[in-house]
Amino acid sequence: MKMAIDEKALDFEISEKPFKRILVAVDEDDSDSSIRAFQFAVTMAKRNQAVLGIVSVLELQDLNVFETLSPEKINKLRQNLANDVNVYARQAQKHGVAEIVQLTAEGRPGAAIIGEVIPEFKPDILICGSKSKPVNSRQRIFIGSQASYMAQNAPCSVLVIRK
Amino acid sequence: MKMAIDEKALDFEISEKPFKRILVAVDEDDSDSSIRAFQFAVTMAKRNQAVLGIVSVLELQDLNVFETLSPEKINKLRQNLANDVNVYARQAQKHGVAEIVQLTAEGRPGAAIIGEVIPEFKPDILICGSKSKPVNSRQRIFIGSQASYMAQNAPCSVLVIRK
Repeated sequence: MKMAIDEKALDFEISEKPFKRILVAVDEDDSDSSIRAFQFAVTMAKRNQAVLGIVSVLELQDLNVFETLSPEKINKLRQNLANDVNVYARQAQKHGVAEIVQLTAEGRPGAAIIGEVIPEFKPDILICGSKSKPVNSRQRIFIGSQASYMAQNAPCSVLVIRK
Repeated sequence: MKMAIDEKALDFEISEKPFKRILVAVDEDDSDSSIRAFQFAVTMAKRNQAVLGIVSVLELQDLNVFETLSPEKINKLRQNLANDVNVYARQAQKHGVAEIVQLTAEGRPGAAIIGEVIPEFKPDILICGSKSKPVNSRQRIFIGSQASYMAQNAPCSVLVIRK
């Protein structure tokens, strides 16, 4: 039998700035929900006067690019990724976020973000898009495997943005 | 090869009130992360002048209470659950949330919230705790199966609060 909730335990001071380090994952293959996740992250970072980390991952899971592409092409991909993150960073700055950290990684996005980026950046919250799609007749919607992986495995709070 | 991001696509107006209907799931078996989820939901609801739904689920997955408990005991469990939600609701009201909806359901929390509560309340965002625990030597932390289920299957944005 459950105990009744203790009303005192629920009492708290309203905190307007619960998250001081916000990490947003952006993905060029999923621009709609990435852009919404980015916009929400910028809004929260500005309001909280938080540090905003922006990360994008060069996805290598389906293609062994180190074997199939020339070093020049790989460097070009890396440069494009860094440039894209920089475009996001300039937008965040334009909207009044004072402290921005630009991050890139390579591999499977979930594993790279959980295994490398979060231990480095140490966010209080990870914000990501969902790559959602309707699946069956019961009108359920499933998030992509990477967002699901991050929601399950991140050591911090996770916000999955879905339109 | 990915396309470079279009800077114009990232432009947006800062919205201070992105979520107008907020649903928070509270769980007496997981008071720590439930309370943090509740506190964050109240803060967001107050700031957004949003409608706050508060739901708790009578968990029936491990126990066929309809066979093992008397109707009186089942009614007592239901009454306790409704009372607990009412305690949360009074706290939310005390903190300045104007519009509060109290909800209860029965069954597996994830399935009940996704299948019954969300279609009824139609939130923009679901906020829940994580029941987190450290699992292995790599210091990863896993959320409970119910939070994971909700993060994967909800048709709205999902925020999993983890300390």
